[in-house]
Amino acid sequence: MKVAELSQTSGISVATIKYYVREGLLPAGERTSATQAQYEESHVRRLSVIRALIDIGGLSVARTAHVLAAMDDPAISVNQVLGTAQQSVTVFAAADAGPLDRALGWQRADALIARRGWQVSAGNPGRQLAADVLATFDHLGMAEVSGLVEACASAAEIVAEADLEAVVANGPDRESMVETVVIGTVLGDVLLMAMRRLAQEHQSGKQFPDPDCEPLTLKE
Amino acid sequence: MKVAELSQTSGISVATIKYYVREGLLPAGERTSATQAQYEESHVRRLSVIRALIDIGGLSVARTAHVLAAMDDPAISVNQVLGTAQQSVTVFAAADAGPLDRALGWQRADALIARRGWQVSAGNPGRQLAADVLATFDHLGMAEVSGLVEACASAAEIVAEADLEAVVANGPDRESMVETVVIGTVLGDVLLMAMRRLAQEHQSGKQFPDPDCEPLTLKE
Repeated sequence: MKVAELSQTSGISVATIKYYVREGLLPAGERTSATQAQYEESHVRRLSVIRALIDIGGLSVARTAHVLAAMDDPAISVNQVLGTAQQSVTVFAAADAGPLDRALGWQRADALIARRGWQVSAGNPGRQLAADVLATFDHLGMAEVSGLVEACASAAEIVAEADLEAVVANGPDRESMVETVVIGTVLGDVLLMAMRRLAQEHQSGKQFPDPDCEPLTLKE
Repeated sequence: MKVAELSQTSGISVATIKYYVREGLLPAGERTSATQAQYEESHVRRLSVIRALIDIGGLSVARTAHVLAAMDDPAISVNQVLGTAQQSVTVFAAADAGPLDRALGWQRADALIARRGWQVSAGNPGRQLAADVLATFDHLGMAEVSGLVEACASAAEIVAEADLEAVVANGPDRESMVETVVIGTVLGDVLLMAMRRLAQEHQSGKQFPDPDCEPLTLKE
């Protein structure tokens, strides 16, 4: 199909499609003349993946390009694509995060990893992120959140197991598996946050009933 | 204490402290002369909370100001502060998120809410967010993630229960409870994402062993 048809099918403007090609997110179409190129169904699919990562996952164009490059490189293993996806979607705390005791944070994070028996590499982005959060809880003297920390670890184990099941279910071909890894990692974070909002309101309503709150009436 | 001492104690520059006062994040000190103001221990605490929300939670200054205003208003119930914290930290999908079938997304989200028996209001930010993610999974034809969706819901229930336990443990005074609500909601999201990264690597390593990966050696 020509670029105009690709634009119509995908709902994405020609200018944006050309921008994605320039930035390396979308492979160029096959040139059929000096001014025209031919696009395939695989381009439609790729555009859907790009929009999912950017619009719903909140990734920048640069981070999206980085993840897609790892997806496209057959020399990169499924495991390594997971690592790239994790790095690309993890936003780190500011380097000058005030007077945090970062050594204490690392200690707390590594104790938690050991307690859970998780086999992880030192460079896992979750390790630094967890260290920063745990150091902050300490700095604020929030002892009351210790149960929340363990609950997050248990919740993470449930989600990670389902993450891997989804990836394997979409195997054995590498292309399908890495797509599930990337979309599942990025959109799964958003979904988990969304569900926590819903479950929090449900729990909070039980604990602190609010007569002004009109609950949704839903039928399954 | 004077502003110079507040700066030293908190590790935050005088210019930044004055900026936070101007933006309404930090109450002004009590004026003792035309050029000097007196700050209290409560200002040190507030600065720690501000840095936690901005540096570790990734909130903007404007969103932080909004949450803190709700925390400070005694007429706003704990439940309402939770709602404000949820709204302030929830980043929505782009309004022009391509050719998503949003009606289908709402349908899927509401079916999930009904299945779980969650009593929530129609305006809960998690509802829209979940609808967008579920519509995207549909759009991409990712049937393999249905188990992941249910796992996220179960995980969210575990975390939300611990969220409320932490809040109640810090009661009954309103001020301590709302601080736990706000910090717990914002930093809990980050912690949950961090732990998912760690648990994912652990699961992925079991599924796809990578001989080059050097696991952390930890002692509890």
